[in-house]
Amino acid sequence: MKGDVSTPTTSATVPSDLDIATAATLRPLGEIADELGIPADQVEPYGRDVAKVSLEAAKGEQRGRYVVVTAVTPTPLGEGKTTTCVGLAQGLRRLGSKAVVTLRQPSMGPTFGIKGGAAGGGYSQVLPMERLNLHLTGDFHAITAAHNLLAAMIDNHLHFGNELGLDPRGITWRRVLDINDRALRDVVVGLGARVDGVPRQTGFDITAASELMVLMTLATSLTDLRERLGRIVVGYSVDGAPVTAEQLGAAGAMAVILRDALQPNLLQTLEGGPALVHLGPFGNIATGTSSVVADQVALAHADVVVTEAGFGADMGAERFVNVKCRQGGLTPDVAVVVVTVRALKAHSGRFEIRPGRPLPEGLLEESPEDVRAGLANLRKHVEIVRSFGISPVVAINAFPQDHESEHAVIEQLATEMGVRCAVTRHVAEGGAGAEELSRVVLEALEEPGKLTFTYPLDAPLAEKIEAVATLVYGADGIDLSPVASKHLAEYEQLGFGHLPVVIAKTHLSISHDPALLGAPTGWRLPVREVRANVGAGYVYAICGDMRTMPGLSRHPNAERIDLDASGEISGLS
Amino acid sequence: MKGDVSTPTTSATVPSDLDIATAATLRPLGEIADELGIPADQVEPYGRDVAKVSLEAAKGEQRGRYVVVTAVTPTPLGEGKTTTCVGLAQGLRRLGSKAVVTLRQPSMGPTFGIKGGAAGGGYSQVLPMERLNLHLTGDFHAITAAHNLLAAMIDNHLHFGNELGLDPRGITWRRVLDINDRALRDVVVGLGARVDGVPRQTGFDITAASELMVLMTLATSLTDLRERLGRIVVGYSVDGAPVTAEQLGAAGAMAVILRDALQPNLLQTLEGGPALVHLGPFGNIATGTSSVVADQVALAHADVVVTEAGFGADMGAERFVNVKCRQGGLTPDVAVVVVTVRALKAHSGRFEIRPGRPLPEGLLEESPEDVRAGLANLRKHVEIVRSFGISPVVAINAFPQDHESEHAVIEQLATEMGVRCAVTRHVAEGGAGAEELSRVVLEALEEPGKLTFTYPLDAPLAEKIEAVATLVYGADGIDLSPVASKHLAEYEQLGFGHLPVVIAKTHLSISHDPALLGAPTGWRLPVREVRANVGAGYVYAICGDMRTMPGLSRHPNAERIDLDASGEISGLS
Repeated sequence: MKGDVSTPTTSATVPSDLDIATAATLRPLGEIADELGIPADQVEPYGRDVAKVSLEAAKGEQRGRYVVVTAVTPTPLGEGKTTTCVGLAQGLRRLGSKAVVTLRQPSMGPTFGIKGGAAGGGYSQVLPMERLNLHLTGDFHAITAAHNLLAAMIDNHLHFGNELGLDPRGITWRRVLDINDRALRDVVVGLGARVDGVPRQTGFDITAASELMVLMTLATSLTDLRERLGRIVVGYSVDGAPVTAEQLGAAGAMAVILRDALQPNLLQTLEGGPALVHLGPFGNIATGTSSVVADQVALAHADVVVTEAGFGADMGAERFVNVKCRQGGLTPDVAVVVVTVRALKAHSGRFEIRPGRPLPEGLLEESPEDVRAGLANLRKHVEIVRSFGISPVVAINAFPQDHESEHAVIEQLATEMGVRCAVTRHVAEGGAGAEELSRVVLEALEEPGKLTFTYPLDAPLAEKIEAVATLVYGADGIDLSPVASKHLAEYEQLGFGHLPVVIAKTHLSISHDPALLGAPTGWRLPVREVRANVGAGYVYAICGDMRTMPGLSRHPNAERIDLDASGEISGLS
Repeated sequence: MKGDVSTPTTSATVPSDLDIATAATLRPLGEIADELGIPADQVEPYGRDVAKVSLEAAKGEQRGRYVVVTAVTPTPLGEGKTTTCVGLAQGLRRLGSKAVVTLRQPSMGPTFGIKGGAAGGGYSQVLPMERLNLHLTGDFHAITAAHNLLAAMIDNHLHFGNELGLDPRGITWRRVLDINDRALRDVVVGLGARVDGVPRQTGFDITAASELMVLMTLATSLTDLRERLGRIVVGYSVDGAPVTAEQLGAAGAMAVILRDALQPNLLQTLEGGPALVHLGPFGNIATGTSSVVADQVALAHADVVVTEAGFGADMGAERFVNVKCRQGGLTPDVAVVVVTVRALKAHSGRFEIRPGRPLPEGLLEESPEDVRAGLANLRKHVEIVRSFGISPVVAINAFPQDHESEHAVIEQLATEMGVRCAVTRHVAEGGAGAEELSRVVLEALEEPGKLTFTYPLDAPLAEKIEAVATLVYGADGIDLSPVASKHLAEYEQLGFGHLPVVIAKTHLSISHDPALLGAPTGWRLPVREVRANVGAGYVYAICGDMRTMPGLSRHPNAERIDLDASGEISGLS
């Protein structure tokens, strides 16, 4: 296969994602559940070619090996982690492994904005693509409903006398909708007459940014879900005391709304293998991983479970380890670090890739030198993975325009670092194109590492943030703003000190500054603000402007999406 | 059976709705579809004990007879139309008819407010009750998403230069959520910085009040749905020109979001008969009926189809005839007018029934005189039904506290009017208690009337409103406010003059004034405002304060709803 690399082909040789998806014949889901050994009474059909899997299926011995797919610091175009997950699961299945891929559900809002398919791509996709990009089984809708019920109960509490003494300026719980709607970022509610509530300023986030979204991914059972909901802090009283969803009497009703949404969704890969798609928290302010329960189901039934952690290893893999695996009691064996020639060339600092613009001139020309100039980024991400005690595997996600000499530069680094490495062509060739990677991953699974957390949970919050900044990112230290210091001290006093931390920063650099490419050194992480997601179970530190409600573009994708008389959808991508 | 009536029993002899629902054993839905003759490939399971029925099943000869269940002017407690629908379908089935009941889906928001079950009650319920009161198959969520996408595209249009010249004060399209949240009735959006949109005042309605909700019930096919969406008027330009969803490029994407929600949901009655539950527009500002497509599916497969029209015959049945049946090409054969002793006593003016309060003293004492004093209301509703050319049947919905002498008064009026009449005890006894009513309905179906609309569509809008007010309500005429007159004239000019009308008024009187009981005469209908739901396809006249976003009570039902570790729900009613 390698010989092909020096002969660039155009991407036009791979049909569009929608065309590939439309042409596919789907396997009956019952067959797929059978393949996994999930009993029929634990699989509930939920519309065409989608089923919910009972939480019963999460019980039993976690016999599977656990592979997390992470990446170098991505360009704004992404490096193909999702396609690699799907391709790898397809490849492993071709080699005779019982493999399952577990992924986040794409957010519906951006489907009508600017996004492309979020279900993989090319010949490494999850199907049915239309269901996946729209309502699926309504889990996001359930989160929207439960989130907004809590908001309504907060405003209702203010309206009926505010017995708990909530400070209206201290309410942190906003509302959510699964939509791109910039006009809802900042709103004033409660206008009108006396009967129309208490006026106050608040806003809406996109549903993927709801604390409930990440809370659900971390819940290990219905009981755990119910307890986490009760612990949600919606704001503070005028005395600074936290007010919880339990105190507002909302947690039980929220659990009822969310009950069915805690069941993972069974779909299939383009090659008819099992895919569990479940929930989708943001990768910047949250963990960016799919659910613990989906992985439990998968680990209880499969030989190998392939899951994705959002953005580069500094962000996704770090939270995957220190938050998801720690809270969920999961132990990853291997981490695949996806790298593209394109990304390393961008890390050279010689090219600027912008979404919606043509690729910069010269980027596609053969230039092992440009690749070498960006190698530090890959080296750093491999080191990050090793810091967690997980065996790394480098996956070169090959594009038709790549050159063999460019791949060779990456392979050489891997050799120097003693890391397994494979080229994968799963987008153009499906599972067959990922067989080499699959073999290398199976080898690595024979030599799993020993999971190591970056910090102990009983360390002070500031030390935990510093540990991630220095030990993972490579910063020289952190600079807490006065307000961040004050709030961290308050959180310790309120008993939130035992929580793990999430650092909300740009995904375009290992640092907080998107301009710092490669593997930046000699910098400090400035922490502007901190917030506590007590229900989800972490404190997050904000280092930069984090947008939690996207807007639509001037001509959003919605304008091109339509339905014909036979019910066929066009324009969805 | 009648002998029992004079021995009042307490309602405690019937277990709670939830207990009855929980104790029930459900039939496999496949069996129920078989019973109807709907092919398996047109029935798609959608979670436990619920399925969506393909629109293919709506095609073919409409062989069934069509019964609409309406009522006298209800008290705030309701007169049991939904239970009568379910009980009647159960009774007909016991008599060997292939009977289907078609109902609205209850709104989830009020489940967490103050409402009781909206799936019938006692031994005349639709199951599964929990699914029905929560997400069901997500149709309401789809409407929320499509509605708010259009709202986002409106604000996006303003943000990017407002090419269509929308007057921000002329935007009539609000946002919706399926929740009781008074604080969202009046909001200001678009606050923040320049990148956060254009500030303007707007608000949220509950999803049941969305124009999309009623539009979906009236759509006869996907093509019709797509066209109606395009015709939606979201507001007016500064020149007074209507701006449509089509012009904003939103209608196609909305149709894609709503595609699956146009399929009716198959559930079952407590006795294992088929129930089609689909959509749920408000009964005050909208039609208050379930969907045309659900009734098409039912009429194509059943002997008898029983459906409900919201509130009294003045409201629900009038819109059912002049809007739903006319737009959907449906022909009702019989109208059941539900009456209770309680309601007629209230129409005597001697008792005031208020929700959440104990029944007024003396209401339950044997008093045929009090019933007689309220009879004018029943007489008027029977006349209203006759004005549509539909055969009426009076159904006395018996309560354990009723007395035989009280039923006799009602039966005597029916005899005088030459109307069939039966006592029904479906709440306490299920289908067996509705067998007498079922027999009477089957008799009436042998003598169907000839459907007559209240007005021709080509009459001027004001004349259509006047026709409903005078010919249906019995008003002496209408008084249009200056602004209502002006807008009606504008609507005629804009080409909306051919639309039917809906009169938004209180349901607690045949007039616009809840204090006018019985069958008021010597009054005129004041029309304060008019609005056009061009996509749904009607103009509505507002006569009173119509609340389109409920609030929660001081201690809403949500506080009592909870989930246990095994996933059992408590407190739902």
